Amino acid sequence: MAHGTRVEHDLVGDKEVPADAYYGVHTVRAVENFAITGSTIARLPGLVTSLAAVKQAAAQAHRDLGLLPADIADAIIEACAEIRSGRLADQFVVDPVQGGAGTSTNMNANEVIANRALEILGHPRGSYDVIHPLGHVNLGQSTNDVYPTAVRLALVASVRALDESMKALADAFGLKAQEFGDVLKMGRTQLQDAVPMTLGQEFTTYAVMIEEDRRRLTEAAALLLECNLGGTAIGTGINGHPRYAELACSHLAGISGEPVRPAGDFIEATQDCGAFVQLSGVLKRVAVKLSKTCNDLRLMSSGPTAGLGEISLPPVQAGSSIMPGKVNPVIPEVVNQVAFEVIGNDLTVTMAAEAGQLQLNAFEPVIAYSLLRSLAHLRAACDTLATRCVPGITAHRRHLHDTVHRSIGLVTALAPHIGYGACTVLARRALATGRTIKDLAAESGLLNGDELDTILRPEALTRPHATDRASAPPVGQPTT
Amino acid sequence: MAHGTRVEHDLVGDKEVPADAYYGVHTVRAVENFAITGSTIARLPGLVTSLAAVKQAAAQAHRDLGLLPADIADAIIEACAEIRSGRLADQFVVDPVQGGAGTSTNMNANEVIANRALEILGHPRGSYDVIHPLGHVNLGQSTNDVYPTAVRLALVASVRALDESMKALADAFGLKAQEFGDVLKMGRTQLQDAVPMTLGQEFTTYAVMIEEDRRRLTEAAALLLECNLGGTAIGTGINGHPRYAELACSHLAGISGEPVRPAGDFIEATQDCGAFVQLSGVLKRVAVKLSKTCNDLRLMSSGPTAGLGEISLPPVQAGSSIMPGKVNPVIPEVVNQVAFEVIGNDLTVTMAAEAGQLQLNAFEPVIAYSLLRSLAHLRAACDTLATRCVPGITAHRRHLHDTVHRSIGLVTALAPHIGYGACTVLARRALATGRTIKDLAAESGLLNGDELDTILRPEALTRPHATDRASAPPVGQPTT
Amino acid sequence: MAHGTRVEHDLVGDKEVPADAYYGVHTVRAVENFAITGSTIARLPGLVTSLAAVKQAAAQAHRDLGLLPADIADAIIEACAEIRSGRLADQFVVDPVQGGAGTSTNMNANEVIANRALEILGHPRGSYDVIHPLGHVNLGQSTNDVYPTAVRLALVASVRALDESMKALADAFGLKAQEFGDVLKMGRTQLQDAVPMTLGQEFTTYAVMIEEDRRRLTEAAALLLECNLGGTAIGTGINGHPRYAELACSHLAGISGEPVRPAGDFIEATQDCGAFVQLSGVLKRVAVKLSKTCNDLRLMSSGPTAGLGEISLPPVQAGSSIMPGKVNPVIPEVVNQVAFEVIGNDLTVTMAAEAGQLQLNAFEPVIAYSLLRSLAHLRAACDTLATRCVPGITAHRRHLHDTVHRSIGLVTALAPHIGYGACTVLARRALATGRTIKDLAAESGLLNGDELDTILRPEALTRPHATDRASAPPVGQPTT
Amino acid sequence: MAHGTRVEHDLVGDKEVPADAYYGVHTVRAVENFAITGSTIARLPGLVTSLAAVKQAAAQAHRDLGLLPADIADAIIEACAEIRSGRLADQFVVDPVQGGAGTSTNMNANEVIANRALEILGHPRGSYDVIHPLGHVNLGQSTNDVYPTAVRLALVASVRALDESMKALADAFGLKAQEFGDVLKMGRTQLQDAVPMTLGQEFTTYAVMIEEDRRRLTEAAALLLECNLGGTAIGTGINGHPRYAELACSHLAGISGEPVRPAGDFIEATQDCGAFVQLSGVLKRVAVKLSKTCNDLRLMSSGPTAGLGEISLPPVQAGSSIMPGKVNPVIPEVVNQVAFEVIGNDLTVTMAAEAGQLQLNAFEPVIAYSLLRSLAHLRAACDTLATRCVPGITAHRRHLHDTVHRSIGLVTALAPHIGYGACTVLARRALATGRTIKDLAAESGLLNGDELDTILRPEALTRPHATDRASAPPVGQPTT
Repeated sequence: MAHGTRVEHDLVGDKEVPADAYYGVHTVRAVENFAITGSTIARLPGLVTSLAAVKQAAAQAHRDLGLLPADIADAIIEACAEIRSGRLADQFVVDPVQGGAGTSTNMNANEVIANRALEILGHPRGSYDVIHPLGHVNLGQSTNDVYPTAVRLALVASVRALDESMKALADAFGLKAQEFGDVLKMGRTQLQDAVPMTLGQEFTTYAVMIEEDRRRLTEAAALLLECNLGGTAIGTGINGHPRYAELACSHLAGISGEPVRPAGDFIEATQDCGAFVQLSGVLKRVAVKLSKTCNDLRLMSSGPTAGLGEISLPPVQAGSSIMPGKVNPVIPEVVNQVAFEVIGNDLTVTMAAEAGQLQLNAFEPVIAYSLLRSLAHLRAACDTLATRCVPGITAHRRHLHDTVHRSIGLVTALAPHIGYGACTVLARRALATGRTIKDLAAESGLLNGDELDTILRPEALTRPHATDRASAPPVGQPTT
Repeated sequence: MAHGTRVEHDLVGDKEVPADAYYGVHTVRAVENFAITGSTIARLPGLVTSLAAVKQAAAQAHRDLGLLPADIADAIIEACAEIRSGRLADQFVVDPVQGGAGTSTNMNANEVIANRALEILGHPRGSYDVIHPLGHVNLGQSTNDVYPTAVRLALVASVRALDESMKALADAFGLKAQEFGDVLKMGRTQLQDAVPMTLGQEFTTYAVMIEEDRRRLTEAAALLLECNLGGTAIGTGINGHPRYAELACSHLAGISGEPVRPAGDFIEATQDCGAFVQLSGVLKRVAVKLSKTCNDLRLMSSGPTAGLGEISLPPVQAGSSIMPGKVNPVIPEVVNQVAFEVIGNDLTVTMAAEAGQLQLNAFEPVIAYSLLRSLAHLRAACDTLATRCVPGITAHRRHLHDTVHRSIGLVTALAPHIGYGACTVLARRALATGRTIKDLAAESGLLNGDELDTILRPEALTRPHATDRASAPPVGQPTT
Repeated sequence: MAHGTRVEHDLVGDKEVPADAYYGVHTVRAVENFAITGSTIARLPGLVTSLAAVKQAAAQAHRDLGLLPADIADAIIEACAEIRSGRLADQFVVDPVQGGAGTSTNMNANEVIANRALEILGHPRGSYDVIHPLGHVNLGQSTNDVYPTAVRLALVASVRALDESMKALADAFGLKAQEFGDVLKMGRTQLQDAVPMTLGQEFTTYAVMIEEDRRRLTEAAALLLECNLGGTAIGTGINGHPRYAELACSHLAGISGEPVRPAGDFIEATQDCGAFVQLSGVLKRVAVKLSKTCNDLRLMSSGPTAGLGEISLPPVQAGSSIMPGKVNPVIPEVVNQVAFEVIGNDLTVTMAAEAGQLQLNAFEPVIAYSLLRSLAHLRAACDTLATRCVPGITAHRRHLHDTVHRSIGLVTALAPHIGYGACTVLARRALATGRTIKDLAAESGLLNGDELDTILRPEALTRPHATDRASAPPVGQPTT
Repeated sequence: MAHGTRVEHDLVGDKEVPADAYYGVHTVRAVENFAITGSTIARLPGLVTSLAAVKQAAAQAHRDLGLLPADIADAIIEACAEIRSGRLADQFVVDPVQGGAGTSTNMNANEVIANRALEILGHPRGSYDVIHPLGHVNLGQSTNDVYPTAVRLALVASVRALDESMKALADAFGLKAQEFGDVLKMGRTQLQDAVPMTLGQEFTTYAVMIEEDRRRLTEAAALLLECNLGGTAIGTGINGHPRYAELACSHLAGISGEPVRPAGDFIEATQDCGAFVQLSGVLKRVAVKLSKTCNDLRLMSSGPTAGLGEISLPPVQAGSSIMPGKVNPVIPEVVNQVAFEVIGNDLTVTMAAEAGQLQLNAFEPVIAYSLLRSLAHLRAACDTLATRCVPGITAHRRHLHDTVHRSIGLVTALAPHIGYGACTVLARRALATGRTIKDLAAESGLLNGDELDTILRPEALTRPHATDRASAPPVGQPTT
């Protein structure tokens, strides 16, 4: 035996393990088998702590049922509590992208918990005749119920965190909407001048969108709270105590603070990735709309001379290594990129979910890896947008005012009064001459100055209102 | 002027239109501009009839408000009702994939309705001074509110139809689940023998999955029922009457029989594709799970000699042009392919949604095109699976029985009694010798015949049950 | 027997077939089994004619080998030639999305060819003892070699057609590049003003991109020309004559005019969808860049008042049902949507390719369906862009000239002379005051009028040139 | 000023930097702005070292041109060489997912190189009047040419590495193919028994596929070697010396050992992500086929009792925490998951590429991030498959032999002799009775024992061969 190692044994044979490691033979083999990402499960937000919560709930339930001796159960529970508090993270060393449907993650946890529990009771590591990673820590469990349950809990925690950041972002947009409530601007459809609106209405939109997405996210999280704990290997609950599932779930709700509940059909729940696909779809929706919002911010702030120049984003760093004075919309740009990543991750989740076979989806590790990173990156993106960009946005009020009054889009407001055809003529004349719609309309004699002032009031332009149609000329084709 | 044409006029200039066409200049130009798919909007399920419903609701609302003369309103309403009943479908000739955010679809409808209404009132086609496609038929409307509203209605109708087909499919699986309730088989995880279950439990899973997806689909449809009718160009409601939105929505609910309601923020609703992305995500979920189910059916029916041979699918056509007697799982295969198409369409929807800019998403036509085809193809896939495959599935009961009893997977059931380590030894011996777990366990003396019979009862194997652990040996490492 | 039908027989049993149909029992069953898209294989560009070419080549090869009687061979060959010329298209009625790996398409062809050959020889339909769809028409063939070979040929023909349309589009951009060769404008990075360029350089870019994509497309087509004809069921060539593969391939090259060649390993070639995935990836690349180009066109033509207003696209239809005079970039918009569809189709192809199992990919029908539509739609998109949009683009020269001279981006050209730090100061001052960089630079005394005129010549700004650095001040941090 | 910091200044204002940091103000701001992934550019394989190579080439070129004083150039070159050797990696601290089109990565490099060069010349950090990060290190460069050039070089290096691992994997499959050259088995199409082949032919397929993919990968890498170095901000080469581009490229080729060459059109090259999309498409292809291969391995090794049981994969870890003796195909499973990740990353790359606007794609950081991880993970996946799985695969020869002789698939070989119809009858009888095709054929009198022995020789079954057709009965429909 090499210095500083102990020998453990499994189905494959003997294997040396670092003497001071809390993990054991299964973990060592998994590390060798899966050297993919260079990362570890400890770096996936909440996965290890959620798994410890599940293990703790299982131990508590088996203690209640008398299937686990109290002293062993207590040591296991204490070890789990420590891990939940962030301790021993450096002992969770397997790659998050792993074969085996999460078995290596579960084994890593079983071994660390067993050895820490042994330590708590005063035994040396590896004394598995006293506390066994499988016989005791994993008692009544299978990777196939504890791993997805832990993944679900970790996802829910990440959803809660993202939701909080989205709320802050919606609030930031809402404050701007108030600030810009009186700033009239041209609304655009298909990038062409359409009809007037306020910049406040535009920013309200972003806040409303985010609030809608928050509701969808919360619905998706609710689906994650149905777990298959107690289903063991394939959901039939083989080797499980009839009262275990309910007990374990109840303990888990207490530990996690989330209303976890047993799924209606454990066999279905064990193989079903529907809730993951649903969450992924909602994250994609969030990404799509955040990206659209950032596209808008970049577009409106384009310039300073040769762009739309409607707003300025706060400068947060120099924009160019060659162009002095250049400031770029770097915060929206990074949000766009996170959105693209999340949409890519959704595809990974989709393919992994589709590839499940028979009683289990073996590819849940890459589902967890993708979703947990999407959630964390989206949260970071919302945070940087909410703190480093939105609050510092300023409006170029004079420019916005000018574009409204020079725009041919105003002609739409005249259509109920003078007809679509006459308006088309006016619009084309304005475009050709560079003169304003208001001037040309007055000149045409179709409407007088007072009528025009009434029609073109900002408050009339930016919301529905009754028009006296009696004066409207017959509709018809343009006469030009 | 060419024989058999009339001339119409628009912003671009004069244009000949077939004399007997109900459509007009805008439609003719659109047909020339967008010759993409070789198809027409009339072939998209429900789009034209839904648009006619929206137009009818708008006319009814404007009649109520006194903004549209009663005789003109009534003719428009009658024309819309005819279109809703399927008439004039050959007049809806623009390509479903079109630039312009749906304007060409809306214009096609405005023109057909105007000319049909003119005909009803006894006027020749093109008498737009009497009834104008824009001034009357499109009164108080914009493509940007009527088109998405029509798309939403069409989608809801297709969702309802799909839901019905999914229910029939779930029922078909449910019937098979009852039929196979007593057929014991090996459950598998990661394609490796795991622990026993019944074939009935397996088929129940498919029914449960579909029922869950139906619930998600219904939720997604509910989001589609929020419409922006009355928002006109960008949601500010410019040129709209203050009472119009509510009135039109109410009429639309009456016409369609769906609880359509106004969105909370019309500006947001006009640019937001969130509900489309959400529906698309749920359709992807449905596709993922249908595909997984069909993968399972193909896998379980693999053979007849060199496959799993657990079930047979009913033969519905000869399988090969070269291999006599070959029967292939062609129905599940076509369902898989529809699933792949739906997942691809989801990406199209995602990209189109992300590409929206400022106050409008110009790419709603391809979103509608993708979603309506996904819904129709998924429905067809469910129908052929529910009628031509599932009811004729038969189980190879003897073979399934044999594999359970020859499988080493049974050893799991012994683990609570003799420990994981001893079981590993038994399993490896069974694998090496080809003998059964039961024989080897009996021979080992660890358990006697009666104990084994009790432990290995089907009803004990396929659900949780309490074990008398008192007799369990100490857990520990395998002793080999 | 119903009036007007004949009865045919297959593995499943007896089946009525319309008496005058050229197709037979297999086709009838397939139509019933796969009612998915509402379309037929006859509507997929080139698929049926390519399949007829393959069938013809096979018959010619077997005639050469003496395995098919000359009279039967000749009748089959004549029938195939007719189908290649477009006749009997209405007899190819199976759905392009079908289970069975293309068997139904092959059977449809076998039956139509057999019955037409029978007719040529004066026999009634269904006289399969004389000419049998399988025994004669399909002699020495399997769906698994003839179907993918036909798909490959059809794809190559569509690639050639797309390539021609892309060349026309590149030429259209090239002509515009010449026309705009002297139009100076601000180049932009990250939507912010960067440094000057010409509009000609910008349009040259689009031409160059397309030419590059054409090269990639041609490379991808070359991979498609490796076929597995002669591999029969799984590539082992069972039941095939040793000289058949080479002979058939040679005949097929003659018939199709394409340098078809046998793959190196038929077993690999039979299951490999690599060439389809490669082509799909290249089509996605084409779509990505066409979409980017159209995004640019829409952005540059935004306005007319509140946009970038750099160019105008030719109006091809009225833009709005509510906003008079509005013209939208409808042609680029439809190209964007086709791009999104193609990218979605690529995902469908990817999933179908990944799902292949063992010796065959059963999902080639949806691969063919997706790729052939992507090619056709891309071609249509290029055509409408090349004929209805690009040639009519006009530049707003004065506006472009003004933005260059008012832009702070000019300061970059001064940096080699006065340093990055001093330039940053100038840029910020220009931004604050609205004055030009040239004025401020002259006023600062750092450069005199002659120096500025020399530095800011258009030809100096838009290409590399040597700078006399001797006069440059020490670089350093801005001194504010 | 806080203890242990120095103050630097930029466009945004003053900022404290850790006194001993080689990086400066730009880097500090970027770290604050982009806290997304928790990772750094130093962890992306080859990016930092490739960027150092580009910076070194630029310095060498400017020294040659006399634009950079020799002592400063030499110090910069020395600093770059150190970074290329792996030193100072801890100073590259910006997040790989960042806004600004790579400016922060370039700035990080400029600052670290400047401060290390200052140190080499004996100056304290921050003495930018002596060596300036922009004025000297970034001389004649822009992020927009150095960053993509560095990304391309890093990608090429990763492609070379992946190619090597793929070669090893192909070799491993090739060795197995030789070992299994004489093992007859049933080939399958659509998971149904088709016709015989050898296991050697099957494993050859995997080797051939990988070799084909290697060729596609090498082609894609060649496209990456065209760079825009010297194009500076937007490709016009503003502020660049006319001879610089060629000189710098030549130095870069020398430093990197790769045949880097200037692109034909720098403006196009600066905004074009075509080569990235192409590489991503090829990586997706590799992923698709690796995944398909692993699906096959998992399928063929399914069992041990209730599966196909054709091969065994070597056990590399215990498979279950609850099922003793269970061994899972964990290595293929992890390869599948990497494939799903790569396919997801391809979508991220696609969306980022499509989102580029005008003269630059601002989203290259997420493109680089996605591609470099895809390459690294694919390589790791190939390595673990090539070393831990393929070499230990064993064939269950007896079982394979039995399935061939019991399979009805053998009937196909009789079809040329007794006709498709008679064979269909035989096949159905075999299926119904469980008797072998050979027995039933002999019994039927259609063929005698000698004929059957000749027809059913393995060498006749697994390759094309001439058949004496003279004896074949007339083809025709089955007579049941």
